[in-house]
Amino acid sequence: MNKVTKLFGIDYPIIQGGMVWVSGAKLAAAVSKSGGLGIIGAGSMAPELLSRHITKAQTLTSKPIGVNIPLLYEKAQEQVDTALSLGIKIFFTSAGSPKKFTNYLKGHGATVVHVVSTPEQAIACENAGVDAVVAEGFEAGGHNGRDEITTMSLIPQVRKCIKIPLIAAGGISSGQSIAAALSLGADAVQMGTRFLMTRESSAHQNFKQLLLRSTSTSTMTYMKATVPVRLFRNKFSSEISQIEESFHGEALKTQLHEHLGKYRARLGMLEGDLDNGELEVGQTISMIKNIPSVEELFVELLHDYKEAYNLLPRSL
Amino acid sequence: MNKVTKLFGIDYPIIQGGMVWVSGAKLAAAVSKSGGLGIIGAGSMAPELLSRHITKAQTLTSKPIGVNIPLLYEKAQEQVDTALSLGIKIFFTSAGSPKKFTNYLKGHGATVVHVVSTPEQAIACENAGVDAVVAEGFEAGGHNGRDEITTMSLIPQVRKCIKIPLIAAGGISSGQSIAAALSLGADAVQMGTRFLMTRESSAHQNFKQLLLRSTSTSTMTYMKATVPVRLFRNKFSSEISQIEESFHGEALKTQLHEHLGKYRARLGMLEGDLDNGELEVGQTISMIKNIPSVEELFVELLHDYKEAYNLLPRSL
Repeated sequence: MNKVTKLFGIDYPIIQGGMVWVSGAKLAAAVSKSGGLGIIGAGSMAPELLSRHITKAQTLTSKPIGVNIPLLYEKAQEQVDTALSLGIKIFFTSAGSPKKFTNYLKGHGATVVHVVSTPEQAIACENAGVDAVVAEGFEAGGHNGRDEITTMSLIPQVRKCIKIPLIAAGGISSGQSIAAALSLGADAVQMGTRFLMTRESSAHQNFKQLLLRSTSTSTMTYMKATVPVRLFRNKFSSEISQIEESFHGEALKTQLHEHLGKYRARLGMLEGDLDNGELEVGQTISMIKNIPSVEELFVELLHDYKEAYNLLPRSL
Repeated sequence: MNKVTKLFGIDYPIIQGGMVWVSGAKLAAAVSKSGGLGIIGAGSMAPELLSRHITKAQTLTSKPIGVNIPLLYEKAQEQVDTALSLGIKIFFTSAGSPKKFTNYLKGHGATVVHVVSTPEQAIACENAGVDAVVAEGFEAGGHNGRDEITTMSLIPQVRKCIKIPLIAAGGISSGQSIAAALSLGADAVQMGTRFLMTRESSAHQNFKQLLLRSTSTSTMTYMKATVPVRLFRNKFSSEISQIEESFHGEALKTQLHEHLGKYRARLGMLEGDLDNGELEVGQTISMIKNIPSVEELFVELLHDYKEAYNLLPRSL
């Protein structure tokens, strides 16, 4: 038992990252059932839908389930209250100030984890009374820190400057990379892309099949000048690139905003339009060559961790 | 003894990366003396100067010394022949095709290591008969891969696709990060920035002192459209940014070329002009808060590795 497994009441220091359109009740419940922490990604859900997912997850497992709430959405307060009213006790907040909801959530007896991409943000979280931090490196899928700090650089730095539990994210998809993250000082890992590639995730079948053919250069970070986001390279991302080459300053922002429109992520990830959709995925995707059940994945991760540990020399 | 220590005849799987203006005879000899592999960075040296550094290093230690030769320099052949004639048996080549010199060097009985930034390049190295590969992640200082693949993503991928020894580089500066790199499947590590911050490196005193005050956001990758390079943020790098914002396409290339001029790296790193010089340094710089001797650094690295290993759970 370590600091993170104790904090959440789980068996393994493995957390499934909340992902828009991908991590609903089915995935979260499967992860919690397997001994990790499953998280419902509320980012893409109206409060009613979130409520349905939470209720469904609770019928699937009695183990702890968390909810991830991106604070920039206007409905964040409603989402928080919905989850609280349904008995959710673990909140992962992201994309906003850790001060915004921490007191409120803790006042309701919840555990609060905030996602950061710099050591300075981690310190702000500790000061705001957050219970643990997810430090997410540049290699992670989806929205990303502006400073491009990689997991290898970020985790030891965050470890040095906070005392609360530290969860590493970004580029982690195997027992070997879990061992690496723990070596760097993390107490646990959060994986998104690896869990997207399981049978229980809601990612569209076409999307999962496409991802099986990924190479090391299949993802890139786009919109660095506005809201950096790591995407799978496709027609949509090429169009983003072209806009980024053709426009600059305010005109760039306007063009990007227009082109993005709404529901591009839903179109790609949930509905499987691999050309016109926005496909958020981490750089580690090229390491992933199967679509196991969550239960099978846990067996693989635990086995590979042990193998990595056994291969390490005791001293250099 | 592992594959890499055996290949080079060294005690520890720790290699000092060749750095322009920073890694001459003094640093390389100190590293080899301490049981690692010291490398003279020939990139910034005319053949006569390289010859002087090699000869000096050989008077300082009888342990093996390597030479790093960036293949894009016009004098690469001359540098290779100079080093061979002085009995150098270990060559690290970079910035060019591994086919260019591998047969020639191996014909002269040398061991050849090539630096790569993608798994595909690593396969090309193995096919070209290279003896080992340095896989360098996006967090590394100086010149950088176009695809922004981080160490955490890169090392396990390269491990999967080659059989020859694998040396990890980028973001590694401590015993903890060495443990992480080995967990990911590397046989050894190469560190640049960490060795820049030792008493024996030729980096200017002002530069070293400036680096002691680094934060997590002190470096950034510039010139992504032309020749990506990770630099310490200073007046010079701001000017580069401004040019990148103001010009595009061919005009950008011309402007950058003019602004870079010659000897900007020498000006900053060797001569200590911290405003107008080009300061190549890795993202891990913010982790480095001392300037030890190389001998002291080895004690610290071996100690911290052991500590990291001892903290790892046997199983998850």
